[in-house]
Amino acid sequence: QAMSSVRRCLCQGPRLNMVRPQNIDKVEIYPASAYCENVEIIVTLKKDAGQKCLKPESKFAQNYIKRAIQKRSLQ
Amino acid sequence: QAMSSVRRCLCQGPRLNMVRPQNIDKVEIYPASAYCENVEIIVTLKKDAGQKCLKPESKFAQNYIKRAIQKRSLQ
Repeated sequence: QAMSSVRRCLCQGPRLNMVRPQNIDKVEIYPASAYCENVEIIVTLKKDAGQKCLKPESKFAQNYIKRAIQKRSLQ
Repeated sequence: QAMSSVRRCLCQGPRLNMVRPQNIDKVEIYPASAYCENVEIIVTLKKDAGQKCLKPESKFAQNYIKRAIQKRSLQ
């Protein structure tokens, strides 16, 4: 996953449709901005397995993020 | 905003209901984990204005994140 130093789009190259939820340590969402017209979703994996870019429009990304932020409010 | 070094909950103290969307550079979502039973949402603000913790259950957090991830798929 090439991360450019100058702040253009962080996700270069192919993006994943999904990753195993249990491997996810953190999800970063970069809203569309002057630097990059796309929303970018970068997942940091547990056990220093690095970072992956997710397709924002993938069903997995949409559902996973919605469930993650609602989980706290359901308790 | 106190960030603990040992990986417990990152958000200590009061969390915000909302921040100005135009000030948001990045949103980090930490799913509930063995380290911290709460979902944590940390917003990095533009112009080096630092980081703030959001209440995951706030209407703003829910709507902002949903809109941010759908924005790409609407184009």
